[in-house]
Amino acid sequence: MTLSRRALIHLVGRAGGVGAAYRTMAAMGLLAVPAAYAGPPALPPGNGRRVLILGAGIAGMVACWELMQAGYDPLVLEARKRTGGRNWSLRSGDEILERNSVQHVHWPAGPHLYFNPGPARLPYHHEGILSYCRMLDVPVEVMCNDNRGALMQDDKAFGGAPQLNRAVVNDARGYVAELAAKAVDRDALVADVTVEDKERLRAFLRAFGALDKDLAYRGSTRAGYATPPAGGMQAAAAPQPLDLRQILASDFWQGPMQFGEFSTMAATMLQPVGGMGRIGEAFGRKLHQHIVLGAEATALRRTATGARVEWRDAAGGEHAEDAAIVLVTLPFPVLRGIDADFAPATKAAIGAVDYVSAGKVAFLAERRFWEEDHAIYGGISWTSRDITQIWYPSAGLHQQRGVLVGAYVWSEEIGTRFAARSPAERLEAALSDGEALHPEYRRWLGKGVSVAWPNIPYSGGAWAEWSREARAQHYPVLLKGDGPFLFCGEHMSHITGWQEGAVRSAHYALAQVGERMRG
Amino acid sequence: MTLSRRALIHLVGRAGGVGAAYRTMAAMGLLAVPAAYAGPPALPPGNGRRVLILGAGIAGMVACWELMQAGYDPLVLEARKRTGGRNWSLRSGDEILERNSVQHVHWPAGPHLYFNPGPARLPYHHEGILSYCRMLDVPVEVMCNDNRGALMQDDKAFGGAPQLNRAVVNDARGYVAELAAKAVDRDALVADVTVEDKERLRAFLRAFGALDKDLAYRGSTRAGYATPPAGGMQAAAAPQPLDLRQILASDFWQGPMQFGEFSTMAATMLQPVGGMGRIGEAFGRKLHQHIVLGAEATALRRTATGARVEWRDAAGGEHAEDAAIVLVTLPFPVLRGIDADFAPATKAAIGAVDYVSAGKVAFLAERRFWEEDHAIYGGISWTSRDITQIWYPSAGLHQQRGVLVGAYVWSEEIGTRFAARSPAERLEAALSDGEALHPEYRRWLGKGVSVAWPNIPYSGGAWAEWSREARAQHYPVLLKGDGPFLFCGEHMSHITGWQEGAVRSAHYALAQVGERMRG
Repeated sequence: MTLSRRALIHLVGRAGGVGAAYRTMAAMGLLAVPAAYAGPPALPPGNGRRVLILGAGIAGMVACWELMQAGYDPLVLEARKRTGGRNWSLRSGDEILERNSVQHVHWPAGPHLYFNPGPARLPYHHEGILSYCRMLDVPVEVMCNDNRGALMQDDKAFGGAPQLNRAVVNDARGYVAELAAKAVDRDALVADVTVEDKERLRAFLRAFGALDKDLAYRGSTRAGYATPPAGGMQAAAAPQPLDLRQILASDFWQGPMQFGEFSTMAATMLQPVGGMGRIGEAFGRKLHQHIVLGAEATALRRTATGARVEWRDAAGGEHAEDAAIVLVTLPFPVLRGIDADFAPATKAAIGAVDYVSAGKVAFLAERRFWEEDHAIYGGISWTSRDITQIWYPSAGLHQQRGVLVGAYVWSEEIGTRFAARSPAERLEAALSDGEALHPEYRRWLGKGVSVAWPNIPYSGGAWAEWSREARAQHYPVLLKGDGPFLFCGEHMSHITGWQEGAVRSAHYALAQVGERMRG
Repeated sequence: MTLSRRALIHLVGRAGGVGAAYRTMAAMGLLAVPAAYAGPPALPPGNGRRVLILGAGIAGMVACWELMQAGYDPLVLEARKRTGGRNWSLRSGDEILERNSVQHVHWPAGPHLYFNPGPARLPYHHEGILSYCRMLDVPVEVMCNDNRGALMQDDKAFGGAPQLNRAVVNDARGYVAELAAKAVDRDALVADVTVEDKERLRAFLRAFGALDKDLAYRGSTRAGYATPPAGGMQAAAAPQPLDLRQILASDFWQGPMQFGEFSTMAATMLQPVGGMGRIGEAFGRKLHQHIVLGAEATALRRTATGARVEWRDAAGGEHAEDAAIVLVTLPFPVLRGIDADFAPATKAAIGAVDYVSAGKVAFLAERRFWEEDHAIYGGISWTSRDITQIWYPSAGLHQQRGVLVGAYVWSEEIGTRFAARSPAERLEAALSDGEALHPEYRRWLGKGVSVAWPNIPYSGGAWAEWSREARAQHYPVLLKGDGPFLFCGEHMSHITGWQEGAVRSAHYALAQVGERMRG
């Protein structure tokens, strides 16, 4: 099958050139080139019909915008006093309200002095959210996600001393290539490579792992320099390779080393200029006539003609709004607390989804010591300690000050511990952990703030995590909707935890709206 | 030796914590953390003494700036009518003068509409040039160099159809890990890993290559998606892995696949905001009282007290300037043509260095189809065809227009052919080659320009490439200088082809100036 396809394409290529072969492969679905982003679904004319939307996060605002374009009269009820939901950038003077604490951001103002407690990355193939950045005129820029100049630290390996990402990644790569070459020597082959190809396979492995002529790995400048090249007589010397047993003893290989190859983590990684919150803010400005802020839904009722949403305004006033369709984008930890006329299967489904207890810490740095002293520009250092990651800003390079993300936690165990701590305790723990990577840490960092998503009102968690069972049993129930109520948001997608999931789920729900409006 | 060191550090770590172990390792030189950049050498007070500098490229201007700081009176003679040398950005209205042709840049103005015919990348560990960006207030930003969303194309493989970088890289990685696992099965081990560690080694290989439970590679979403995840029921499906035999048949593994791991190519890659030329321009503004533009050296004479440089101004007027020391930064293809009182060994050395025949082509794109249609944001696509690379801009993302680098050639064979062509022929060839990757190419691209460095007056080549023999025999001769003449520039470093080489060689030469001024 594969062979005959290839033979066919080869023939087409011979006859019609590469362009013809390319188009043939595309037509046959053989090109791994991503399918062009289809965009939002077509909607029947709205004729001013009302659609209610609960939540002015990304999903709710995408739905609102597309309904507006098609002539509907969407109304978004948003409990917070700002738009964006988890799309949020904290800047000078902002407030962080958790269930048991209030924090204020005491940083100077500056275009690069922001902190994204929620999403902070736009993978290049998340074409939905990127297309809305384009539509909203929110400029995006390249960010570094996986930085070969950053560090990895594990208390279980190398005596706890941090190692350069480039050394861990490339020394491991060299050892793997050396092992693979040994397999070739012993006549093991892979993927139908023939014996005639063995020499080419060896040459490939040598290039893959920077192996010596004898197919052994003895270190490489890919891992850095024992002596960096310079002027005069100073030529480059490769460092001694790291001890593979120490790499194996670490957890570096359980994620950090492959990080930049994961589909949602690979380059090119993008970010909005000025903070992820620019998206939610721009949407909010564009849709402001259709959004009520400070409007907290208190009850979702079914009526003869659709639904009635009862809501409370910021001053405590009670209101109700009727509509044939209500798009419910609220995260389930919030939705669970609202009195709703949902069917039992819907209620069971809403109760069956776990939310991740993620959290982050950010510090103001009076000096960007990571750039000046360590040549770390953006990207992430990893540690086995609770903080899990340190994120260096990709914006404001070479400026005096910067905002450093001193912790990004998402494991259930660490996240729960994190959320239980007071803001002050979180900062102290983050400084203490961070010193394992940067002993000079406390000298430059201050004015820390933290966000523990389980404690954030109107969120109640960072993002949905479907168990295999819940995905099979409950997700299809929710996808169909419950009478006048349709559900969307990142949790109603196969891209949970990403804004792209919110966009795509909104599109899915809009297609359902379209069907109902036609029918 | 290694073991006892580790044992020692482990003990220090137990007794004094990770911080102590870290500092101990640093003290023992065991940390692969780059040594803090030492900066320029200290100079004795200049007391207004004159130093002549030939060439206002990066090396010449670094030397000029440092001499100014120390109280000298440097004078830079620059043949061109602009500063920067090969540090050069072309923008709206600029002119490209080659020996046999003139081109003009007919693009609209725009901060992102520039083309760097020379250097275009600042690796994060090139701390010399980066420190001058900081000093000059030339802002830098993250650029994408190695993009998993870009393409690789080879007429010898896959019927000539372009493949996604992420598929080639990650499928190859999977196959290598599978091979390595087979070696482990056959009791081959690597780097003193013990038999007890075999299970951990297998788990490591599984993570490394995204292998199945049975340690076979059967594809991974790291390589992309057959079906991308979305809203509704659309879950992610991994593509069929690429045929390893086709990967082996291609030249992808002879560079492109390891590209992002090479020390000077790895993330984080940086660029000046607005074009690489911003560095040369900023230096020029800062040093303008010490630089004479349009001043072409015609003869270098030895005198009783040092040297005399004869030079011609732009109007043809003849001048001469005396100094005890002359820093000669001119590229050797240029220096070879100047009448100079050099010793025979110096002349032999200057004649012994090859220069790379590199060249580039850039087009104005009326629409950034690579972003909108293919989700390619910055980075490089590779091809076996003459153009070698297509560079997508990392600046101006989501703008209407962009400048695409449609060829970057540096092999001797291709570069020579490239330089021999007329500008119009180069553009046609670049369009034709580029269609192998982007069949829609011609629809959006126009107003192309090209630079063939061998044809550029006052450069005569792209950068120096020392043969092993020339480096051993001639480089030390030039490093010592020849009487009053000291040589610097990227060619006088172990980082040839990079601006960092120019900076470091200038520092080396300044140390020599300092010694002489002291002595």
